[in-house]
Amino acid sequence: MSPLFGRLTVAGVGLIGGSLALAAREAGLVGEVVGFGRSEANLRVALDRGIVDRVARDPASAVAGADAVLLATPVGTGAALADAFRPHVGPHTLLTDVGSVKGSLVDALEARWPEPGRVVGGHPIAGSEIAGAAAARADLFRGRLCILTPTKATQPEALGAVRTLWEGVGARVEEMDAALHDAILARVSHLPHLVAFALVDAVTGARAARPVAAYAGSGLLDTSRIAASSPELWRDIALANAGALREALAEFRAALDRLEQLVAAGDAAGLEAAIARVRAARRALGGEER
Amino acid sequence: MSPLFGRLTVAGVGLIGGSLALAAREAGLVGEVVGFGRSEANLRVALDRGIVDRVARDPASAVAGADAVLLATPVGTGAALADAFRPHVGPHTLLTDVGSVKGSLVDALEARWPEPGRVVGGHPIAGSEIAGAAAARADLFRGRLCILTPTKATQPEALGAVRTLWEGVGARVEEMDAALHDAILARVSHLPHLVAFALVDAVTGARAARPVAAYAGSGLLDTSRIAASSPELWRDIALANAGALREALAEFRAALDRLEQLVAAGDAAGLEAAIARVRAARRALGGEER
Repeated sequence: MSPLFGRLTVAGVGLIGGSLALAAREAGLVGEVVGFGRSEANLRVALDRGIVDRVARDPASAVAGADAVLLATPVGTGAALADAFRPHVGPHTLLTDVGSVKGSLVDALEARWPEPGRVVGGHPIAGSEIAGAAAARADLFRGRLCILTPTKATQPEALGAVRTLWEGVGARVEEMDAALHDAILARVSHLPHLVAFALVDAVTGARAARPVAAYAGSGLLDTSRIAASSPELWRDIALANAGALREALAEFRAALDRLEQLVAAGDAAGLEAAIARVRAARRALGGEER
Repeated sequence: MSPLFGRLTVAGVGLIGGSLALAAREAGLVGEVVGFGRSEANLRVALDRGIVDRVARDPASAVAGADAVLLATPVGTGAALADAFRPHVGPHTLLTDVGSVKGSLVDALEARWPEPGRVVGGHPIAGSEIAGAAAARADLFRGRLCILTPTKATQPEALGAVRTLWEGVGARVEEMDAALHDAILARVSHLPHLVAFALVDAVTGARAARPVAAYAGSGLLDTSRIAASSPELWRDIALANAGALREALAEFRAALDRLEQLVAAGDAAGLEAAIARVRAARRALGGEER
């Protein structure tokens, strides 16, 4: 059986791009994998670990003869990469990505690609605050959700190929509108990151006769773990999804205000009831135990 | 060698009280341990697990002949328990606690105890969103910090005994003023809990054409883990430390405002720099990897 993609170019061989390459190779979905990226050291790791067959430092040799190109770089770099690759890809080369924001990015990619119908926006809900090819692993997507955001322009065959890729590495695939994806992710991912950033900023900046951070317990460590995430990635996500993120921030502020009002009023019964509701909601999310 | 306390009464045989009893027994620091509490089922677990030698459901038999009484119940119950125990304790019985708020609680306990100098406020920085005697374990405090908050009234001998207890179960002990403790804990613990409560409230309440919580990834799960904590415990903590908590909330809101302003302004360089500072601060806290 011939592979799904004879040659796949992965732009950005980090945790996500590297893991997808590893998993796709393991599943026999790809023939040759070409790695493209800025960091020579990271590409070296990717080569040494057998994540990619070869690496390319210039766009032309990166995508020459590629059946598909996967963008796995910060979302703010997508448009420029599509511009750089465009002159060198074939008329039917497929373009897909793994970005945490879809609306504005997919629009930008479709506007730039030779055949807009062969652009398929994707976002696997997996990841970690750990970055780089060294952290890539073939089982990262097993059992995880991958959201695909086709547009009216998307060719069913291109969409089907990207679905096959993700299902082949163990992910569940769900299709939805890009705007809905961005509204959901603003709440479940982008907002928690901004909150964790602000929490670390406030707590590590606070002084109560002495710096307070030395007294952190496991609660603060859990709550702020994602504040160790990549500044570049999260700069781009926050800016690319600013509208939905700010809506989510307003919802969060309103929830925080309600809790503070209960505290300020000394309303013990109201506060206990509010925390009890939250606890039930949190338990329904699962994953309480590590 | 005779034990530190021939008879220790533990009021509230949950994760903290139960773990201290287990650890103190293992270390030979206590003779008999008497468990006191509201929940018959939980006391049964404590008996079955050998955490306590016997249980008592009324205050008089709980503290009769006790050398020391440990309060390990929600902080809002401390004063009423001291009132209930007071008529039945000896003139030199020591009273200590494990509450997450110290100032108002220690004041209330000193005002109620036969000999105020034998009240020693304590707070081990350990715990989890998992509650009850079933979760108790003898190594919970090993290597963890326990803060003691003596006042001008505290007898050095009483303070020394409580220090010996905590050091004997493997904790590091630090003494500080109760107000300083409360200011620090408001930032490193009470604020993160309120933030996690608000985050879960906002996210699980948000609807973007469909409920969004089903799309939660590990970031939200980590960030909101402590939102599964006990409503009763956290109701009491938030109310008992309302002043410092609201100061911490103001600091947090200011940090969140700064981040949102960078997003609203589309200030990519400023946002990246802010997240990079936060990442460095988060990494300095440790515990990024699970």
